Amino acid sequence: MRAAVMRNQQLVVDTLPDPEPGPGEVLVRTLACGICGSDLHFLKHAPRMVDAMRRSSGPYVLDLSRDLVMGHEFCAEVVDYGPDCQRALKAGTRVCSMPLALRPTQVVGIGYSNDTPGGYGEYMALSEMLLLEVPNGLSTAHAALTEPMAVGWHAVAKANLTPDDVPLVIGCGPVGLAVIAALKIRGVGPIVAADFSSGRRRLAEALGADIVVDPATTSPYRTWEDAARKPDAAGLTGLLALLMPPYRPAVLFECVGVPGVIQQMAEGAPRHARIVVVGVCMEADRLEPMFAINKELNLQFVLGYTPEEFAASLHHLAEGRIAAQPLITDTVGVEGVAGAFDALANPDRHAKILVEPWHA
Amino acid sequence: MRAAVMRNQQLVVDTLPDPEPGPGEVLVRTLACGICGSDLHFLKHAPRMVDAMRRSSGPYVLDLSRDLVMGHEFCAEVVDYGPDCQRALKAGTRVCSMPLALRPTQVVGIGYSNDTPGGYGEYMALSEMLLLEVPNGLSTAHAALTEPMAVGWHAVAKANLTPDDVPLVIGCGPVGLAVIAALKIRGVGPIVAADFSSGRRRLAEALGADIVVDPATTSPYRTWEDAARKPDAAGLTGLLALLMPPYRPAVLFECVGVPGVIQQMAEGAPRHARIVVVGVCMEADRLEPMFAINKELNLQFVLGYTPEEFAASLHHLAEGRIAAQPLITDTVGVEGVAGAFDALANPDRHAKILVEPWHA
Repeated sequence: MRAAVMRNQQLVVDTLPDPEPGPGEVLVRTLACGICGSDLHFLKHAPRMVDAMRRSSGPYVLDLSRDLVMGHEFCAEVVDYGPDCQRALKAGTRVCSMPLALRPTQVVGIGYSNDTPGGYGEYMALSEMLLLEVPNGLSTAHAALTEPMAVGWHAVAKANLTPDDVPLVIGCGPVGLAVIAALKIRGVGPIVAADFSSGRRRLAEALGADIVVDPATTSPYRTWEDAARKPDAAGLTGLLALLMPPYRPAVLFECVGVPGVIQQMAEGAPRHARIVVVGVCMEADRLEPMFAINKELNLQFVLGYTPEEFAASLHHLAEGRIAAQPLITDTVGVEGVAGAFDALANPDRHAKILVEPWHA
Repeated sequence: MRAAVMRNQQLVVDTLPDPEPGPGEVLVRTLACGICGSDLHFLKHAPRMVDAMRRSSGPYVLDLSRDLVMGHEFCAEVVDYGPDCQRALKAGTRVCSMPLALRPTQVVGIGYSNDTPGGYGEYMALSEMLLLEVPNGLSTAHAALTEPMAVGWHAVAKANLTPDDVPLVIGCGPVGLAVIAALKIRGVGPIVAADFSSGRRRLAEALGADIVVDPATTSPYRTWEDAARKPDAAGLTGLLALLMPPYRPAVLFECVGVPGVIQQMAEGAPRHARIVVVGVCMEADRLEPMFAINKELNLQFVLGYTPEEFAASLHHLAEGRIAAQPLITDTVGVEGVAGAFDALANPDRHAKILVEPWHA
C-alpha cells in the first residue's frame, strides 16, 4: 500500500506491504484521517517522546529505527476479515474505531507502533471488537473527527461539571475546540476561550464559545472574572469576602501543552479553581506550588477517552451537535502529508487537515 | 509582655507592649503554643516567603523590618474584653481559636502579622467570634494541638474519600501525623505511611498507620500496591488489564513540602491516583507532566481549614480520638524558643514542642 511513512524522523511516501489482519482483526481501507498535533510533536521530538512514554509507563513502545505509519483519527471502510471474526458488518461499511489494536497479551496504539500502521496509509488492520458503524447521514470527513472530539468530551467528563460552573478554555487549537464543543453540548456557560490567533478565536466562536479573548491584549482571567462574578458579592470585605466566593465555580482547561502554561494558569486562576490539563506537555515544566496551595487549586490531568466516550463522540457528530464543518480546513493525499505538517504550524490558517490516502 | 520576638530574622527574647484588644476582641493569656514547621521555614526564608505570599495573593502581608511574634497553634485563657464584645465566656475560661484576627476591612493572620502577636508571647488579642471553649476534660497541651490536627482533618476532607480508598502518606512530620490521625478517625485503611526517620515511623504507628515504610530500604509505592491489590485482578492482560484497575483507589498525601517530592510521587503513583498536596513547598518545583498525564493523576492542593473543621479537630482531641500524648516531645519557655527551633531540625527526637510563655 501507499503510505506517508515516518522514517529517520522524516515523512516520506513509499509503498509498504498491506497490513494482514490477525485473529479478530479486520482489514479496512482508510477513507480519511486527521492530522493531530501529537503527530507534529512526534515527528519533531520522537526520541524524547518515546523516552518520556517509556519512563511514564505509557502504552506506546516502539522502535524509531524502523518505519512507522502515523494517523489515529480515522474513518475507514471494511474490506476483509481475518480469522475468528464475527463478520457482523459487510464489506464497504464505513467504520470508526479507537486507535487501539487488542492483541492477546497487550494493547497496541495504532499509528504509534511499528506493526500497526495508522491512517496515513491506504490500509489498516483494526480490532473487530472496537468497530463502530458510521451512521448513514454522517459524512466521512466529519466521522474522522470522532477521535479528536472524544478527547474534549473526556476532558469535560473528568471536570465533574456542575451547572453553576463557568469554564475558561486556554488555547483554541483542535484540543481546545473539542473541549468547547463538549462544554456546549453539556450546556454550561458562558464559555470563555482564549487564543492568540484570530482564526482560532473565530473557530472557538463557531464551536460555541460565548466570549473570546486575545491574551495579547486582554487577560483571560480578568475576562473570566467579569463573566463569573456573582451579582450579590459586590462590596463584601473581611471574613465574609473570605468565606463567600465572589465568583461562580471556575473550571479551567489547559489546551496548550507547552511548559509554563500550567504555572501561568495557577497565577491567573481564582481561588478553588479546578484546572483540567488536556494539553500534552512533553517536557519538564516549572511550577511554584505556593500559588496552587494558597488558592487550593485542583489539577486534573487527563488522557484519551473511554470506549463509551468515543462512541458518544461519534453520536454527537452524527446528531449534528458539533459545528464540525469549519474545523476541516484542508484535505491532502499521502504526498501532501509532509506539506500539511508544515502548514499546520500556522494556527491562523488551519485547524484540522484530513489525509485521504486514496486521493489522487 | 515577655515574648520570643522575630527581629532581623533572629529569635530574641524581649519585653513588648501588651496587645490591646480592639472592638470585638478579647485579651487572652497564652497557656501553650506549638511550634510549627512553617515557623521554622519562615525564620529561615522570611523574605522569600513574604514575596511568595504577596505574589500568590496569600493573606499575610507584613513588614520584616519590624518585630513579629510568631505562634499560631495555641490554647489560651480569657483575661479581659475589648469594646463591643458579647462577654459570654468568663475570665479564666480556656479557649482555642483559628489564628485569624477579623478586622473591619480585612482578615489578618495571627502570628504572621506585625500587629497581631501570636502565641510565642504572654498575651494575644483574639476575635471573640472565633473563640472555642476547651472542654473540661481536655488538657491545655492537647488543646494546643487543635490547629495542626485541623490541617490534617481538612486535607483528608479535601480528598473526598470513599470507603474503598487506600491511603499512602509520604512524610510523617506533624502534618503527615495529623493526616494519619484524620484518616484513622475516618476509618479508611490500611493506612500506609513512609518516613526516613524511625522516630517518626513509630509516631505514625502510634497515630494509626497500619503499615510503615522506610523509603531508604523499601518503596512506599510497591508497599502500597501490595496493600491495595485486588485479589481478583491477578493475571489480567491486554484490554482487561487496561479497563479493570488491579488496585483499590489510591489517595496519596504529600506531607513533605520540598521540591521534587510531587514529581517523585507522580512517578511512583498508580494510575488514576489522587495526590493531596499538604506539604507547603515555598520554592519553585519541577514537574514532568507526562507522568501525571499518562496516569490521569489528580493533584489537590490544600491550605488551612474551615471554621467547622477547626471545631471538629478540638472535638476529636476532647473525645480522645487522637493519640495526642506521644506527639508532644518537649515544653519550653520564651527563652527556650530559639533552641527549640534548632532542636526541631532533628526529626528523630522531636515532633511537637510546646511554648509555655509563663514557664519559668
